[in-house]
Amino acid sequence: MTFEKWQKNTLHEKCAVMALYTPSQPAARLTYFGLSALQHRGQESSGIISSTGREFFAHGGAGLVAQVYKESDLQMMKGNMAIGHNRYATSGQKHDRHIQPIHRGDDVMAFAHNGNIHSTVALKKFLRSKKLLKAGTNDSEMMADAIRYYIYTGSTPDEAIKASWPLFTGAFSCVMMTRDAIYAFRDKYGIRPLSLGKLGRTGYVVASETCAFDMLGARFVRDIAPGELVEVSKKGFKKWQIEPSELKLEIFEFIYFARPDSVLQGKLVNEARRRLGRKLAREHPIKRGIVVPVPDSSIPAALGYASGCSLEFDHGLIKNRYIHRSFIEPTQELRERAVAMKLNPLATHLRGKDVILIDDSIVRGTTTKQIVKMLRGVGVKSVHIRVSSPPVKYPDFYGIDTPNQDKLIAFRKSVSEICKHVGADSLEFLSYDGMIEAIGLPEDQLCTACFSGNYPIDLLDRAKEVKIPPSTLSS
Amino acid sequence: MTFEKWQKNTLHEKCAVMALYTPSQPAARLTYFGLSALQHRGQESSGIISSTGREFFAHGGAGLVAQVYKESDLQMMKGNMAIGHNRYATSGQKHDRHIQPIHRGDDVMAFAHNGNIHSTVALKKFLRSKKLLKAGTNDSEMMADAIRYYIYTGSTPDEAIKASWPLFTGAFSCVMMTRDAIYAFRDKYGIRPLSLGKLGRTGYVVASETCAFDMLGARFVRDIAPGELVEVSKKGFKKWQIEPSELKLEIFEFIYFARPDSVLQGKLVNEARRRLGRKLAREHPIKRGIVVPVPDSSIPAALGYASGCSLEFDHGLIKNRYIHRSFIEPTQELRERAVAMKLNPLATHLRGKDVILIDDSIVRGTTTKQIVKMLRGVGVKSVHIRVSSPPVKYPDFYGIDTPNQDKLIAFRKSVSEICKHVGADSLEFLSYDGMIEAIGLPEDQLCTACFSGNYPIDLLDRAKEVKIPPSTLSS
Amino acid sequence: MTFEKWQKNTLHEKCAVMALYTPSQPAARLTYFGLSALQHRGQESSGIISSTGREFFAHGGAGLVAQVYKESDLQMMKGNMAIGHNRYATSGQKHDRHIQPIHRGDDVMAFAHNGNIHSTVALKKFLRSKKLLKAGTNDSEMMADAIRYYIYTGSTPDEAIKASWPLFTGAFSCVMMTRDAIYAFRDKYGIRPLSLGKLGRTGYVVASETCAFDMLGARFVRDIAPGELVEVSKKGFKKWQIEPSELKLEIFEFIYFARPDSVLQGKLVNEARRRLGRKLAREHPIKRGIVVPVPDSSIPAALGYASGCSLEFDHGLIKNRYIHRSFIEPTQELRERAVAMKLNPLATHLRGKDVILIDDSIVRGTTTKQIVKMLRGVGVKSVHIRVSSPPVKYPDFYGIDTPNQDKLIAFRKSVSEICKHVGADSLEFLSYDGMIEAIGLPEDQLCTACFSGNYPIDLLDRAKEVKIPPSTLSS
Amino acid sequence: MTFEKWQKNTLHEKCAVMALYTPSQPAARLTYFGLSALQHRGQESSGIISSTGREFFAHGGAGLVAQVYKESDLQMMKGNMAIGHNRYATSGQKHDRHIQPIHRGDDVMAFAHNGNIHSTVALKKFLRSKKLLKAGTNDSEMMADAIRYYIYTGSTPDEAIKASWPLFTGAFSCVMMTRDAIYAFRDKYGIRPLSLGKLGRTGYVVASETCAFDMLGARFVRDIAPGELVEVSKKGFKKWQIEPSELKLEIFEFIYFARPDSVLQGKLVNEARRRLGRKLAREHPIKRGIVVPVPDSSIPAALGYASGCSLEFDHGLIKNRYIHRSFIEPTQELRERAVAMKLNPLATHLRGKDVILIDDSIVRGTTTKQIVKMLRGVGVKSVHIRVSSPPVKYPDFYGIDTPNQDKLIAFRKSVSEICKHVGADSLEFLSYDGMIEAIGLPEDQLCTACFSGNYPIDLLDRAKEVKIPPSTLSS
Repeated sequence: MTFEKWQKNTLHEKCAVMALYTPSQPAARLTYFGLSALQHRGQESSGIISSTGREFFAHGGAGLVAQVYKESDLQMMKGNMAIGHNRYATSGQKHDRHIQPIHRGDDVMAFAHNGNIHSTVALKKFLRSKKLLKAGTNDSEMMADAIRYYIYTGSTPDEAIKASWPLFTGAFSCVMMTRDAIYAFRDKYGIRPLSLGKLGRTGYVVASETCAFDMLGARFVRDIAPGELVEVSKKGFKKWQIEPSELKLEIFEFIYFARPDSVLQGKLVNEARRRLGRKLAREHPIKRGIVVPVPDSSIPAALGYASGCSLEFDHGLIKNRYIHRSFIEPTQELRERAVAMKLNPLATHLRGKDVILIDDSIVRGTTTKQIVKMLRGVGVKSVHIRVSSPPVKYPDFYGIDTPNQDKLIAFRKSVSEICKHVGADSLEFLSYDGMIEAIGLPEDQLCTACFSGNYPIDLLDRAKEVKIPPSTLSS
Repeated sequence: MTFEKWQKNTLHEKCAVMALYTPSQPAARLTYFGLSALQHRGQESSGIISSTGREFFAHGGAGLVAQVYKESDLQMMKGNMAIGHNRYATSGQKHDRHIQPIHRGDDVMAFAHNGNIHSTVALKKFLRSKKLLKAGTNDSEMMADAIRYYIYTGSTPDEAIKASWPLFTGAFSCVMMTRDAIYAFRDKYGIRPLSLGKLGRTGYVVASETCAFDMLGARFVRDIAPGELVEVSKKGFKKWQIEPSELKLEIFEFIYFARPDSVLQGKLVNEARRRLGRKLAREHPIKRGIVVPVPDSSIPAALGYASGCSLEFDHGLIKNRYIHRSFIEPTQELRERAVAMKLNPLATHLRGKDVILIDDSIVRGTTTKQIVKMLRGVGVKSVHIRVSSPPVKYPDFYGIDTPNQDKLIAFRKSVSEICKHVGADSLEFLSYDGMIEAIGLPEDQLCTACFSGNYPIDLLDRAKEVKIPPSTLSS
Repeated sequence: MTFEKWQKNTLHEKCAVMALYTPSQPAARLTYFGLSALQHRGQESSGIISSTGREFFAHGGAGLVAQVYKESDLQMMKGNMAIGHNRYATSGQKHDRHIQPIHRGDDVMAFAHNGNIHSTVALKKFLRSKKLLKAGTNDSEMMADAIRYYIYTGSTPDEAIKASWPLFTGAFSCVMMTRDAIYAFRDKYGIRPLSLGKLGRTGYVVASETCAFDMLGARFVRDIAPGELVEVSKKGFKKWQIEPSELKLEIFEFIYFARPDSVLQGKLVNEARRRLGRKLAREHPIKRGIVVPVPDSSIPAALGYASGCSLEFDHGLIKNRYIHRSFIEPTQELRERAVAMKLNPLATHLRGKDVILIDDSIVRGTTTKQIVKMLRGVGVKSVHIRVSSPPVKYPDFYGIDTPNQDKLIAFRKSVSEICKHVGADSLEFLSYDGMIEAIGLPEDQLCTACFSGNYPIDLLDRAKEVKIPPSTLSS
Repeated sequence: MTFEKWQKNTLHEKCAVMALYTPSQPAARLTYFGLSALQHRGQESSGIISSTGREFFAHGGAGLVAQVYKESDLQMMKGNMAIGHNRYATSGQKHDRHIQPIHRGDDVMAFAHNGNIHSTVALKKFLRSKKLLKAGTNDSEMMADAIRYYIYTGSTPDEAIKASWPLFTGAFSCVMMTRDAIYAFRDKYGIRPLSLGKLGRTGYVVASETCAFDMLGARFVRDIAPGELVEVSKKGFKKWQIEPSELKLEIFEFIYFARPDSVLQGKLVNEARRRLGRKLAREHPIKRGIVVPVPDSSIPAALGYASGCSLEFDHGLIKNRYIHRSFIEPTQELRERAVAMKLNPLATHLRGKDVILIDDSIVRGTTTKQIVKMLRGVGVKSVHIRVSSPPVKYPDFYGIDTPNQDKLIAFRKSVSEICKHVGADSLEFLSYDGMIEAIGLPEDQLCTACFSGNYPIDLLDRAKEVKIPPSTLSS
């Protein structure tokens, strides 16, 4: 298994967006810093477009924020407004053409998108009718092309967004820029997060997560409401509620995606994760052993679990932070050690101990299996797995990169079968109700489709891809 | 203050070396994986040279291991032996010419070095006499040129190393390769670490830290002895004790440099750090508060401290792992937030709490001061600093990038003055004896010069750079 | 004087365009070969866009055709229609953004232009009214944006061109591509050339010069008529005469711009140039001496002159063909030898001889002066200059890169003053009538503005830049 | 046939060398300009190394001089002495490692070579004995390694060259640089040219051809004598005659290789070529027709022939100067037009005429055949070929890229058979005696091996590769 494939065995978030207006500072440079705070949401490519009011300046490329931009790139990008994007590619191929923000050389508008238009039938039909549908296009590009069509034919930007809105079926948290204003809008379920901050006296910033505000010294104002459109320009702030809000924030943001120092719907992510760990301790306690997280996202839950059970916590798996997507193919001999190359157990320390491994979720089970094997290899006495979320049984359609449903281990296997498959001494998941309670938001404000199969948005032509899990039937 | 400068305010390690012989696998590719495990020791540039026995293949460049090598580079590098190097540049400038391993197009030998020849008077005199001293050269290059001279004039490689040995004054853990053998040697004090491992049945690997062995599935054999030279080729393993060993392992390897999963002189680094934390808890306990580490190197000590004081531990400062050396200059407004851009406190969580901040060392004090300010900014009730090592009062000369002595805050100020300077409510250092005890090695096997001023190696012409700290006098 | 500046002292052509439809061959690859035949018309940058009918593929860059495209670029460019462009930048700066063909990511249309919209007042006004005028735009981009606007709002491509036509004031020979057709059109005076060829049974090719057809084995059909628009697609060939033709072909195409193997309005350029030389021999004969051309464009005229006077011809000035725009700045000592670095006289051969130097035109006089000095330097007996065109007294506005009028040496000086200025023993220009007669086209079919001041197109707001030459008054 | 292959069907020169010492100007920059004048001798790669007396600065790369060096490269290259090299690769592969000048990072010496050590047996044996022979090495590198060995073991540079001299079997015109002097030397037969010039009052320059001196404003002093070594430093000029001179200058330098404005052994190349043409006119005159050269190298001979026969001369074949080695593979349809893509006949002008095609040599005959076909294609009445050198029947071993002997058309076929093969109406070669007489040097001062089979240097182990041509036997 290659690193690429190995990484594909875990859940992956998709994309960060950002938009910024500031009368006194170079907007592109601030956006650069904000995108670096949002790097965890997308590491495949990054792009920024700024506007002087008269023309656009664009730069983007494959790789991390720190690799994509040189000082000279930022110096060239003038203007006091900008939008930016970090992309996590779900497709195996890395096309430069998919780097966002999307723009055309006419400098009429630029656009970036976090989410997924799961059904593009209506959008394609519309564009085809206007002779604007081209081959090799993606959902974000089609959204931009629809809005752009309306601007070209005389609509104001806000009217153009409203006119295109019915064509957008799915999860979308978007930012947009014309020559003299920035825009942000979010689908009516608010599945992907999007927050509004204030920068200095008259500046504004919109970002996927609030950690970007901290990076810039901006003050969190509020979340962009689901179904809301906001506009910021030198003329000030405007907003429209295009659709009534029916909040269904993706629950995986709490479990795995968001940075621990971000605040979602008023909840600090780090604390939510600690609560998930503490709840897990209450549901599935263990008396003895050393609590070890799968780094990095499971650390708060592991701390919560250790505290809940009054057990010792240790970073027993050391992560090599320098291995990433572009990593070179190992030799045949090394290949079976793929996980071991990224995670190294503290062998002499763990030997002979009862290890309680805390993971935030199990998707395919492949990584978990390899970690257990590795721990056994250094001579631990036992491995007990505790997962701070319920079994993932349903695929995602709104922008999370879950595999096909039949690749989800909890779709096919019961908990005891999973335990056996990964080779653990015991394995327990947090209950669905425990998860909801720990997060602290009303269940009906969360999209829990991956766990429950309850999809807030009509799946339309893709509904046939979802099946009732046999594992549910058998348990 | 730029990021560059900010990072300069902390202690920095210098360089990783590696050498590898394996009859069955591509040596360059294995070296690549090993260097990625040693990335924390040097992130400025990386280089690998392999040998087929008949010719060398070299590749290197500025940046991280994962950036420097492409698949095609590794495919081009044939041969079953290789040496590699990660460089941490101490000079501000980044010269491609300083990328190691050093080699010449004649494929006679290649050489890489971790350490520092602090006095180069003798070496320069020798090379000048042979008309081989060139401008713009560095200590590593001069070492290689001296050894090479002896090979060119008829010595075998081991004789050449022995003949050059008296010219090398300082700390050096080196690897070398001729067309048909690899070599490794370490100064008689063994100041920088260097370990030997076995790879499969007949392969050998030498690396700065044992974590590289885990990455490759190699088995740790023993440390290269101080003053020892080893040779590995298809003819087998040979060794020479050139000088009697007087081990003085750099104590900062335990405190800060080494990866927590490495084993130094039989001690797992992670455990040593936990013991430092626990000892600190005993010496300077606190009754109430939340224990927060300065990530990443202080985490084990903080866990040890929290456990020792039975206090809650939390990752209260979230580190942005994507900000590094090449990061872009912030705007004027952002500049004073330099530390805040890399570390973000969990504001809502820490507010109103007593924070016990654990740091592994204080060098200039600049970063500490900014962290305290940042914590005050989110409304903590108090900040108590506990440092898991004694005050750093003396500069280093053997390869650690400490600033001039008068930039060391503990050189000029007493503990209470430092506490006031950084703005903490209380600040305590681990005692010197406590440190030695926690590490668990006899004091005379460690180089403690930064704390004690006892330099194991004669400083020669540079002795005048060291002064008795006024802070010691005043306390 | 830098090479850059030195080259600026001569007249320079601007741009080559090409469009191609072929059902059986890869269009981008053929366009590549055609553009290489048209390289002499623009060496600053090159670009090609192809269409599959469903999407566009674009590649371009700074430099020569052979530098811009790699095999992999052409392999990626699918489709059986394409347009291409070689650019000669008149501005000192080399902006990637000015590389043509112009296109937008919407794949609605691509556009390339040879010529110059000398007055952009109307065009800017139109685009501003549609909120499509952006800063930093150029005339070609504005033409494309206007046509594109009409397509976006529902016009067919040919209607869109017709609707935009009144906004285009100047010289333009353009090619355009939509997803399923190519277009070519030429201003009503046909100032810049544009020819139509047939490629195989059903393919068509449009190019600035017929030498591109020879390169591809295409057959010349006819010139695109001034004021004509043609469309080629798989549905076949269509044409519209948008305005009545009033042909005014730029006379400099015959004198200097076009490749000698191209055919313009039925005249082989090489033969026209020989006739200019022969006519010059009749008007200003010399009895004795060796005829030497300023390479390369003056060679046919020099052969004609030598044959007309029955004198010996020789390539007495050897041209270094490897010195071009990107050439490095010479040292101070070499700077005054700028021309000598590009042209080297056959010293031992010319020494003591009467040299008759044939140049096709004199613009600023700077190069001529340096050549005379160089010839004197190798000891020629005398230098007699004969110029195969009349004095250039008026600036150009339609796309030839002539300097400001007061930089034109013939604007300020009489013939005898020019002779004295350049240091020649004698200097004579071909007469205006002689030139017209030699070219062999009716005077009213040629734009002779540079010589006569008769501008076929209304100069509008730029008329004030033209003055009556004092040299005319004084002579 | 690819372009690559097509070019391989002609004779190709190999390499230019240059060395320069000047107290007042930046040596690397002057070398850059000199190498651009010598570009015709090698277009595959270029390299320059300069010395400040204390260290070397090197830059090189694949491509033309104008592509390889950027302004910043030259600015970085300090020092008042430099050597440079343009390479023509004979092997199909383009290895960066073969870029000259050869140097090692020790800055002890740098070396560049024009020619060929046809037998490397002795050289390899010597290096092997010193353990310095490495795989993948080439003749130039081995020469440098031998000299370097002697310098390393205590010889002065001139002694080192003298000591290595017996190991060098073949044609070599070399330049070398140590930190404080430049050297130039030439094999005892002086097969490849090498000339000495004076630059300002105290500077010196050595170059493969004198045209480089004109470029720099340097004054030709004399040729480096065969078997001579010269040294230039700030201490002045020194020379040694290592072996007695037995001049055998490669006759192809006059016929084809050298630039027309260069002077070889006192003869201006352009004039020698005109004399070859005039002699050809006397031996094989034609009464009627238009004389057309195969551009560029045959132009002077064609002018000589036209003048000798009192016939009209015209550039009837227009060369596309922008097609070169890196040119893209044509489509299948275009492939058979390979020559037509590089040379375009003036169709309307040549139609119906008797064309006398002048070529300087015929090697394989492939290009000639295609040109004849192309001329027939535009409807010429007849094609009479006159070649300004005798038939090439023997391969070269000293650095000219001739094909294997059995690929030489004149090895297998008689003159009438060649005429038939290429499809000409008549074909005649200049006689051997006519060639010698026209060049104007004594026959015994020229290497005429390609025509006569008389190899001046002992072919040693490669003698078996030469056969008596059957075409000679049959004629």
